[in-house]
Amino acid sequence: MVASLRLPSLTSLLFPATTRYPAALRRTLCLRNRPASGFATAPSGTSSPEVERLRSDRAVTPRSQDFNAWYLDVIASAELADYGPVRGTMVIRPYGYAIWEAIQEYLNVRFKETGHSNMYFPQFIPYSFIEKEASHVEGFSPELALVTVGGGKELEEKLVVRPTSETIVNHMFTQWIHSYRDLPLMINQWANVTRWEMRTKPFIRTLEFLWQEGHTAHATPEEAEKEARQMIEIYTRFAYEQTAIPVIVGRKSKSETFAGADITYTIEAMMGDRKALQAGTSHNLGQNFSRAFGTQFADENGERQHVWQTSWAVSTRFVGGIIMTHGDDTGLMLPPKIAPIEVVIVPIWKKDSEKTEVLSAASSVKEVLQTAGVRVKLDDTEQRTPGWKFNFWEMKGIPLRIEIGPRDVSSNCVVVSRRDIPGKAGKVFGISMDPSTLVAYVKEKLDEIQSSLLEKALSFRDSNIVDVTSYDELKDAISSGKWARGPWSASDSDEQRVKEETGATIRCFPFEQSQGTKTCLMTGNPAEEVAIFAKSY
Amino acid sequence: MVASLRLPSLTSLLFPATTRYPAALRRTLCLRNRPASGFATAPSGTSSPEVERLRSDRAVTPRSQDFNAWYLDVIASAELADYGPVRGTMVIRPYGYAIWEAIQEYLNVRFKETGHSNMYFPQFIPYSFIEKEASHVEGFSPELALVTVGGGKELEEKLVVRPTSETIVNHMFTQWIHSYRDLPLMINQWANVTRWEMRTKPFIRTLEFLWQEGHTAHATPEEAEKEARQMIEIYTRFAYEQTAIPVIVGRKSKSETFAGADITYTIEAMMGDRKALQAGTSHNLGQNFSRAFGTQFADENGERQHVWQTSWAVSTRFVGGIIMTHGDDTGLMLPPKIAPIEVVIVPIWKKDSEKTEVLSAASSVKEVLQTAGVRVKLDDTEQRTPGWKFNFWEMKGIPLRIEIGPRDVSSNCVVVSRRDIPGKAGKVFGISMDPSTLVAYVKEKLDEIQSSLLEKALSFRDSNIVDVTSYDELKDAISSGKWARGPWSASDSDEQRVKEETGATIRCFPFEQSQGTKTCLMTGNPAEEVAIFAKSY
Repeated sequence: MVASLRLPSLTSLLFPATTRYPAALRRTLCLRNRPASGFATAPSGTSSPEVERLRSDRAVTPRSQDFNAWYLDVIASAELADYGPVRGTMVIRPYGYAIWEAIQEYLNVRFKETGHSNMYFPQFIPYSFIEKEASHVEGFSPELALVTVGGGKELEEKLVVRPTSETIVNHMFTQWIHSYRDLPLMINQWANVTRWEMRTKPFIRTLEFLWQEGHTAHATPEEAEKEARQMIEIYTRFAYEQTAIPVIVGRKSKSETFAGADITYTIEAMMGDRKALQAGTSHNLGQNFSRAFGTQFADENGERQHVWQTSWAVSTRFVGGIIMTHGDDTGLMLPPKIAPIEVVIVPIWKKDSEKTEVLSAASSVKEVLQTAGVRVKLDDTEQRTPGWKFNFWEMKGIPLRIEIGPRDVSSNCVVVSRRDIPGKAGKVFGISMDPSTLVAYVKEKLDEIQSSLLEKALSFRDSNIVDVTSYDELKDAISSGKWARGPWSASDSDEQRVKEETGATIRCFPFEQSQGTKTCLMTGNPAEEVAIFAKSY
Repeated sequence: MVASLRLPSLTSLLFPATTRYPAALRRTLCLRNRPASGFATAPSGTSSPEVERLRSDRAVTPRSQDFNAWYLDVIASAELADYGPVRGTMVIRPYGYAIWEAIQEYLNVRFKETGHSNMYFPQFIPYSFIEKEASHVEGFSPELALVTVGGGKELEEKLVVRPTSETIVNHMFTQWIHSYRDLPLMINQWANVTRWEMRTKPFIRTLEFLWQEGHTAHATPEEAEKEARQMIEIYTRFAYEQTAIPVIVGRKSKSETFAGADITYTIEAMMGDRKALQAGTSHNLGQNFSRAFGTQFADENGERQHVWQTSWAVSTRFVGGIIMTHGDDTGLMLPPKIAPIEVVIVPIWKKDSEKTEVLSAASSVKEVLQTAGVRVKLDDTEQRTPGWKFNFWEMKGIPLRIEIGPRDVSSNCVVVSRRDIPGKAGKVFGISMDPSTLVAYVKEKLDEIQSSLLEKALSFRDSNIVDVTSYDELKDAISSGKWARGPWSASDSDEQRVKEETGATIRCFPFEQSQGTKTCLMTGNPAEEVAIFAKSY
């Protein structure tokens, strides 16, 4: 039996919202998270405001006050990641890594369902490989890490630590592919990659990051195009359904296309500060790499042809996207489907006489939910007060909290609170008689949270995209922090001008386009598509 | 209803054993597996016999004829791995990677059950870190790969590409551990590691390999010791129960202990050529790294103490161990629990009129088994003959084969053959009436194969260990290719002498020791333990 959600919870009475995160608690929460060195600093230690912020004793800066500071605070306080000893590197801590594992688990199933096999390529690539595809080397050479010494000796040929694997993949594909019978060849690898980035930010841009990179080879351009589209659609569904991020899916402009691709498809997400985050890409590589590496097959008529290829990737950057889409002043807010812990149970007692029955009830609730497949944690430590625990788990973004006090035990009920609706709680009665009531209630609430986060992000996104018909309108939209959407058929140099004058780039030509003739916002010429412009990470 | 296993199968009549692997087929099988460059060769291409072998057109060399050639042939023909473009690197192909995924899946569950969390540390380690622990730098410095250039610039401090992560782990642990309440800290990472090995061999020893490395910190030496023991026991159970490899678990001698550890526990496996393979290790690190990195905690009395640590690892080397334990002249033989495909179904028809009903029956069988959780493949390609398929899937080591021909369809049965018992097949009748008969039969056979492979490996192992009481007996045992087991309390220099004179090393002091007083085989002094000596990979 589920009571009205309008009843105030015992908890919100005991711990009113205004007392959340007292200054002393904030200090306690953050004390353990001071990095020794950090992003954007040399190992020797010249400091920056970002690092100073993390070194200070404050807990989560309100998001509304300073988005960047909030982001770094959340990562530190929720123990998602820490700074590695080498500038721009990141240690992914268990809680952050568990989110990445949830991403892996979902995508791995989708990749296998669609006929891809996992495998592993070496990370050391001969430097000469990178030079084989002209635009590829141009795009990647400024970002390379080079191994020049191995086993105590200077190497004859320096080795690139993979920034991406198209070159070594093609080197191997050339040996494996002989006839049309060997096609399509569809593989994926989960791996680390290295790009020597200058401006780094945890999860979003790090010297080394984790990703999956899919690589496929096909007999026809149509098949390659279909594959590239299929994979960006898998990413899109993943973003919407699992992470509640309403990405916009589209095609990159020529200047933003992957170095070595004919077409790059992208999913673009709007972060809480309204900056765009490129959250996943799928490339139609055409025959660029197969020509550079001689990857050929004999077709059904015995004629030698170059294969048509794709590659596609999603990285640990997605974790940053989840944080920056859903978090609020209080900290992290995780969509249930991607949350390492969906429900936290906080037992409450004052007298020792109450402890046993409260803990016993809490354990039963835990077991009931766990058996039903809910990821649940019982926080029964005695070192912290219930109030501390409420704040801590809210900051960690756990979607649902269940409280059980002595009065709840005697009235055979629990109090359930949603992370995304502060102060609002429901009571579930009769749980010892019929545990399925609680399970059904919890699952329903988790579903509601999942949908509600998506709706909220969607309405935030849509209210921050402005349809523009002129360059002036575009500039206004961008300078007010929004995204601009308008018809575009202008030149690369016009695109460059927009970037220089507004700081915004074309994020994509969205797949979703309105009907009818359009007029380019820049030139007044006919335009076939609208483009989306935004500042981005 | 299960008929007697003594009936000869339709298949063994149609394709007698003597016609297996005709020369032309051997060529076909291997044609696609010629690497462009290889292990033990420079990228520029000076060649070696091993590489030449793989470049030739022959298929699997019989194991009995040349073990090493057989091993490389199996890896190439079964498409487990290929050579990367950089000397000593390896591409793990989908079939080989699927075995690694099965290893990961099992161990990952055990690690989490025992309280470990996955996380990720950067692979770039400042060179100065490696130098902090004296024996660690001595052990690893000859094998390091160094990044000296990043983003086009010479780096101020060269970076080590991780050969193992104790140093960077301790750097981070020092920041995360403050009080006894932060202990135990128990983590694991799945990652790539780099060791600049001179003599490489696919899976067994490669410049870069994949592994998991667990790292834990504890408040007491007893807890650390318990953890180190627990993890080697998890590895031991994994080896026996999943991979059917009867490893011997024990302690390394001082000279074979991990660089930086107090104690190294090891599981040692006997390969088909009777060489030993160190298949997994668990180290009690004592306070060596915590002292070097200042990893301290305040105990319950507020006193600062250094933590006690462990680390433990299993790598892609295990895949090599599986190949070299169970394979036979015909190729790979996989224990069902670790096999990416447990059952292959080969439909057989001659006339087109038979095709539809045979394929339909084969599909039903596939579905029945798949639904029951059996990993099954239906090989319904028309480009190959059934004989070719039998040979191919045998070489790939699939534990069970199911044949369905027109006569089987009409008599409502299938023929089931075990990979590990050539020529012996069973018939299962009445499958369309009651699919559970087939499922039960298949599962029983898979269990039998799993046990049988373990028993066979165990008896092979035990018949090749000689108990010795003198150095002469030890030398005889080793020179006849066996392992020697004998009481040992001699010096490190005696141990070194054995190595130089016989090529064998102490693999371990096994946990399993007989009671009673012993006399050191070398010195005649009292000895507390027997040691096992063997040549090893």
